[in-house]
Amino acid sequence: MTSASPAQIALAQQLADASAAVIRGYYRSPLSIDDKLDASPVTQADREAERVMRNLIAASRPTDGIIGEEYGEENADADWVWVLDPVDGTKSFTVGRPLFVTLIGLLYKGVPVLGVINQPITEDRWMGGVGVPATLNGQPLHSSEIGEIAAARIGTTGPEYLDVAKPVFDALVKACRYPIYGGDGYLYAQVASGWLELVIEEGLKLHDFAALAPVVQAAGGVMSDWQGKPLVLGSEGRVVASANPAIHAQVLPQLAALPV
Amino acid sequence: MTSASPAQIALAQQLADASAAVIRGYYRSPLSIDDKLDASPVTQADREAERVMRNLIAASRPTDGIIGEEYGEENADADWVWVLDPVDGTKSFTVGRPLFVTLIGLLYKGVPVLGVINQPITEDRWMGGVGVPATLNGQPLHSSEIGEIAAARIGTTGPEYLDVAKPVFDALVKACRYPIYGGDGYLYAQVASGWLELVIEEGLKLHDFAALAPVVQAAGGVMSDWQGKPLVLGSEGRVVASANPAIHAQVLPQLAALPV
Repeated sequence: MTSASPAQIALAQQLADASAAVIRGYYRSPLSIDDKLDASPVTQADREAERVMRNLIAASRPTDGIIGEEYGEENADADWVWVLDPVDGTKSFTVGRPLFVTLIGLLYKGVPVLGVINQPITEDRWMGGVGVPATLNGQPLHSSEIGEIAAARIGTTGPEYLDVAKPVFDALVKACRYPIYGGDGYLYAQVASGWLELVIEEGLKLHDFAALAPVVQAAGGVMSDWQGKPLVLGSEGRVVASANPAIHAQVLPQLAALPV
Repeated sequence: MTSASPAQIALAQQLADASAAVIRGYYRSPLSIDDKLDASPVTQADREAERVMRNLIAASRPTDGIIGEEYGEENADADWVWVLDPVDGTKSFTVGRPLFVTLIGLLYKGVPVLGVINQPITEDRWMGGVGVPATLNGQPLHSSEIGEIAAARIGTTGPEYLDVAKPVFDALVKACRYPIYGGDGYLYAQVASGWLELVIEEGLKLHDFAALAPVVQAAGGVMSDWQGKPLVLGSEGRVVASANPAIHAQVLPQLAALPV
């Protein structure tokens, strides 16, 4: 498979640095709370951080496309497309907890090949992809080797975000070691780091999963849709991330059997 | 009401500093994961941090009592008793997320009068009590003034930890702006900071709530048991923390009506 170039890897790091500088300025400030009473506050941090990243991409990789959560598509039929979610976990951001992450993914012909998961406050940066070793702050990572469901830790952002998968998730909570809630993209970084064995979610968008799958997979994990198919441009957003193939094989049949 | 002395307030800060130094050394290290397959891993960090705090108390306040999560009671019938929970949120600790907190409470004749909620990794320190203004890293705090349930954000550590209160919590999730999961003692610090309006939990121990109530209350919030009674030595551990009396008044009747 095609790998990101050294220049693209360096740019991904620059995007994480630049977006983090913007986001840190808004964290826990009164401005970070949107006045609108909706469940997904879009903050000033989100918009400014995406703008800064788009400008950097335009300056150094003008032929690469961009798909961003805030400002939409630009040259999205290019071979190489950056997928940006400046603040994944906007609720964590607005309630002042450092679990939100900046997601930077790079697609080659629709397939995610590089991902950065960046936490601007604690300055934890996960990276990995095709031909790019999984790292946390430059240190090599490997996902957990726990292959028994009974010993596995399972995570999801919140029970309310599960609909179709709720019965399977509830059964797995009982079967697993314990559940972890909250975290959005942070949960997948935890899988890559070996601290969590299983994440099940639904309703994810391209900008939610494009950066996650390359990191999880580079760390030895498996991330797919509920049919076991790779997550690519056009995937539906029903995702499962496992620390290793043994865990994946045990949960996939239950997820694959759920109504479409 | 009697307030902690300046010497006790200074000691509380020293306890937070010393425990944080111990805990940081174990965070995200392989040792942080307990081998036992139980749901509440007790880490080396927990034990060492409590030992360090007990030594400091013994050295500078030998007549104060101590009740610690790890090493039990010592002179617990003294007028002044320190209540210690070195790592509250052991699951957050073991899965590598900086939401666990060190809880340091001080009781006077069984009533919590001073609390410190300390996050060793992000170095966020909440403090407050009777006659002690609520602060986060020395900056004054005030809880949220949102008084409408529809605009309130509600939190709890996880749905599995709610039993008796589950129906009330589920109804409030629907009525509130949105729910936040995970966090243990961190949730109450968020209430004190104005980022969350409501937390409902059950099954808490003295070492879980002793440090929390003084901070929440010093910030303008209300924290009580489900009957509206103050949380003191001997309270049962069914707790509700609200950002202000208006929120508290709206949820208390529903909680008070639950079976004993």
